[in-house]
Amino acid sequence: MTSAIVVAAGTSRRMGFDKLAAVLAGRTVLEHSVRALAATGEFAEIILVTSPARRDEAQAWIDAVRRETGVPVRWAGGGAERQDSVAAGLAALDPAATLVAVHDGARPLVRADDVRRVVAEARTSGAASLAHPVVDTLKRADGNGQVTGSVDRTDLWAMETPQVFAVDVLRDAYAAALARGQSLTDEVSALEAAGQPVTLVPSTPGNLKITHPGDLVMAGLLMRG
Amino acid sequence: MTSAIVVAAGTSRRMGFDKLAAVLAGRTVLEHSVRALAATGEFAEIILVTSPARRDEAQAWIDAVRRETGVPVRWAGGGAERQDSVAAGLAALDPAATLVAVHDGARPLVRADDVRRVVAEARTSGAASLAHPVVDTLKRADGNGQVTGSVDRTDLWAMETPQVFAVDVLRDAYAAALARGQSLTDEVSALEAAGQPVTLVPSTPGNLKITHPGDLVMAGLLMRG
Repeated sequence: MTSAIVVAAGTSRRMGFDKLAAVLAGRTVLEHSVRALAATGEFAEIILVTSPARRDEAQAWIDAVRRETGVPVRWAGGGAERQDSVAAGLAALDPAATLVAVHDGARPLVRADDVRRVVAEARTSGAASLAHPVVDTLKRADGNGQVTGSVDRTDLWAMETPQVFAVDVLRDAYAAALARGQSLTDEVSALEAAGQPVTLVPSTPGNLKITHPGDLVMAGLLMRG
Repeated sequence: MTSAIVVAAGTSRRMGFDKLAAVLAGRTVLEHSVRALAATGEFAEIILVTSPARRDEAQAWIDAVRRETGVPVRWAGGGAERQDSVAAGLAALDPAATLVAVHDGARPLVRADDVRRVVAEARTSGAASLAHPVVDTLKRADGNGQVTGSVDRTDLWAMETPQVFAVDVLRDAYAAALARGQSLTDEVSALEAAGQPVTLVPSTPGNLKITHPGDLVMAGLLMRG
């Protein structure tokens, strides 16, 4: 059985606006992200992890998603950090789940065919992530905006979601990372720390993560366009 | 005197489509990029560097840009690599130019206020680039898409253009880089190799570099939106 966890806990500390509750084409970013997964037909359940404050808002559309797609969406309360929320999602999975996709609630535009490809890869190899090659020239800078060094972009990839894993592998890697007190920006990092191989699946461009208010504008245009 | 060089030489090797000649809202990407600079009122001249094959196409709108904005656009033939084209642009500058902005022909959406801010910074400090903080989790991967390592994204910035420099500083850094046979993905890299300080100016999100066909769709939507 293949399950999905949509992570929408935490606050939008970086930007100071509530990106998940922003409305695009009549639905919140978060609802779009959940519906994008449900529409693929790949998942037997979706665990939606949010802060308790967002529960009522989510409950308002969770039933509609089930009715329209046949996929049950269950709510779970998230923790302070992203990794706490993923751990809460893992704890809430149906015991029969053998494969789990973790998806950012702030990625409402993910394409069904990309989701299917990364699920298929993980089904074979045990761990896979959507990703795209870095095309920008990257530099390190100090707090005053002075360039201090370079980073070679050759062979460098930017991680996206969904990231899909054998449930046991992700559970073990997560337990080890949390025991070490490691801060995780994504699940690939947990597997990497555990020495587990992860395969990257090149995404179709456009799987935007809503970070800035400008991203919302762009996502809205892409959704209509 | 402040000049600009728009670099549009080379081929779109990565994507196999001619991104510069693609039409958005009735004009090519390249014409939009040149007009975006001309419209800022910051530049006394713009040197457009393209492959000889693109000369006629450019000539068709160069005069209109001058007529409408008062900024003369002069054509120069570019080399095989990006850095050869920038060198050709430097050679074609008006001798009175003291400050020069180098801009990618594939960035048609750059905002006038961002251009003005990076020019102002370079006027003070001698070297500045538009840039944005990296928000993605980055990993290194081998040729089979297997994750091989991590790159800390803290303090990491993605370079954009325009990048603006005191003409003498850029000329010296370029001469040194070319003498060493260094391959340059941007001008900041040339200054960095020469030990010259560069200040990063945070851009407004949306200064897309057209790389994939999907970026064209997005740029078209942003332009209309």
